[in-house]
Amino acid sequence: MKPRILVVGTGAIGGFYGGKLAQAGARVATLCRSDYETVKSEGIKVTSTLGDFHFTPDKVIRDLSDYSPPPDYILVGLKVLPEIDTTEIIKAVVGPETAIVLLQNGVEIEEPLVQAFPNNEIISGLAFICVTRTDPGHIDHIDFGRLVIGRFPAGKSDKTDQLANLFKDSGVPCMVSEDVVTDRWRKLVWNAPFNPISVLAGGVDTKTMVENPESLELARQVMEEVCMIAEAVGHPLPVGVVQENIEGTRRMSPYKSSMLVDFETGRPMEVEAILGNGIRAAKRHNLAVPHMEILYGLLKLVDKKIREQKT
Amino acid sequence: MKPRILVVGTGAIGGFYGGKLAQAGARVATLCRSDYETVKSEGIKVTSTLGDFHFTPDKVIRDLSDYSPPPDYILVGLKVLPEIDTTEIIKAVVGPETAIVLLQNGVEIEEPLVQAFPNNEIISGLAFICVTRTDPGHIDHIDFGRLVIGRFPAGKSDKTDQLANLFKDSGVPCMVSEDVVTDRWRKLVWNAPFNPISVLAGGVDTKTMVENPESLELARQVMEEVCMIAEAVGHPLPVGVVQENIEGTRRMSPYKSSMLVDFETGRPMEVEAILGNGIRAAKRHNLAVPHMEILYGLLKLVDKKIREQKT
Repeated sequence: MKPRILVVGTGAIGGFYGGKLAQAGARVATLCRSDYETVKSEGIKVTSTLGDFHFTPDKVIRDLSDYSPPPDYILVGLKVLPEIDTTEIIKAVVGPETAIVLLQNGVEIEEPLVQAFPNNEIISGLAFICVTRTDPGHIDHIDFGRLVIGRFPAGKSDKTDQLANLFKDSGVPCMVSEDVVTDRWRKLVWNAPFNPISVLAGGVDTKTMVENPESLELARQVMEEVCMIAEAVGHPLPVGVVQENIEGTRRMSPYKSSMLVDFETGRPMEVEAILGNGIRAAKRHNLAVPHMEILYGLLKLVDKKIREQKT
Repeated sequence: MKPRILVVGTGAIGGFYGGKLAQAGARVATLCRSDYETVKSEGIKVTSTLGDFHFTPDKVIRDLSDYSPPPDYILVGLKVLPEIDTTEIIKAVVGPETAIVLLQNGVEIEEPLVQAFPNNEIISGLAFICVTRTDPGHIDHIDFGRLVIGRFPAGKSDKTDQLANLFKDSGVPCMVSEDVVTDRWRKLVWNAPFNPISVLAGGVDTKTMVENPESLELARQVMEEVCMIAEAVGHPLPVGVVQENIEGTRRMSPYKSSMLVDFETGRPMEVEAILGNGIRAAKRHNLAVPHMEILYGLLKLVDKKIREQKT
């Protein structure tokens, strides 16, 4: 019996990976808000460098009370923002066997779900992908796509393995990590400098950031701070991870960070998930992270302005 | 005999103070580029909270070869940018008795003029004013206007006193400082944090910067760094100058920094005068100024983008 999967937050990430799971034969329903009418009538069109495809959800729902019984997996593709209470959104459909899969940015984002659903399996996941929702019901997959998933706080399970196999069946490389928290910190080594700097330096792509000595040096210092925090919280990162991230970015085609895309489209940015949570972890361990704090302070003001202009 | 004064850089600062000197009876000529036609035919209209006035220059010139004999004073109101070579611009009209008055932002900006004109008097000046050139031949004076001038590198002279008296005659408070370099550093305590942060935090006014804990803390740290450099270069600032600048800014009406105005109108910003020169002074004395360096790095990229969009 193919698993039943509910995608909550059917934006770029949720839509793309939900569509892939459907390709692998899962029965994938999507919770849609703004895109409900379009997705209901036309499904989701994915333009992709790896081959375009069309995703017709098993069910398109606007209200979770329309969905039962509880799914095997809830795939959370929501942005991590203070005003988005994932727990509150999904609680009506979480059954005893439901695994909650977080395909989201940042560090230390799992705790509220563990608190709310102590007996459910939480699967933490990282998406290494460039993908954008360009219009309602339209996703543009630009590059990459690899996933790393793992049981939170550590280990693997039948559910992680089943999910990874579904992804692999659909052509998405998916690694099961037995230490996914370390993987989150490792991903933050890239996100913590390059997302904020791309916005604060006036809207620059990855190439600009690694080619200019000022931003490169700043990025390096932020990366070192992330490594220091990761070590303090018990998730030391491999030696060379900073250099590896810099070299990797040099080799990438010029790319706009997700935060820059949010900024340019006037949408709130994931400031807390990407900087705030890391800084709070540093404070718990009495670590000084001045570079992260400066970016955080500036970015909070930029984000505040976006929010004011939105209302 | 009333002195002959040539204003070079007839923007907001040059136009306003040149006009004031003309009111006091000086014969004031203006070098104009983009505004030449307007100023030639209509003069400069100054809208001011202290009373509007009209400034008809004694002579409006487009090319300095049209001006002779050398003036008693050259009033430099040019922006301090790497591509603006003040020395080169004025050299044709500097006579043996000409005093060169720099009404410009930043620190350590006098050296090129001392090198080029070793026998001339250099008067360094600071304008505490909110003034904007809104259109060709139109200046909007919003607030303040006080000047501090002094002989560079130190002391006073007949020329500083004569100039100060002319300003006073026109209603502009003008103090002659015998240690104007210290005054420059003191002004940088305000400029070094608030100009850059106003741009980097997404375009915020002074009120926003002092009311948000993140930006206030960052501003305070930049101020402390400026004080440390000032002390190292032999110009220690009074105890309490940081707090005084913060309190003063709290009392000000919300105000857009000059750098933010430049940014919003797509004009190059005075990154080097306001941050670069201070950081280079810190390096000469092996001082770490991480907060200034981060703002500098980000701002250079923002400035680069402005310049690219301009061309």
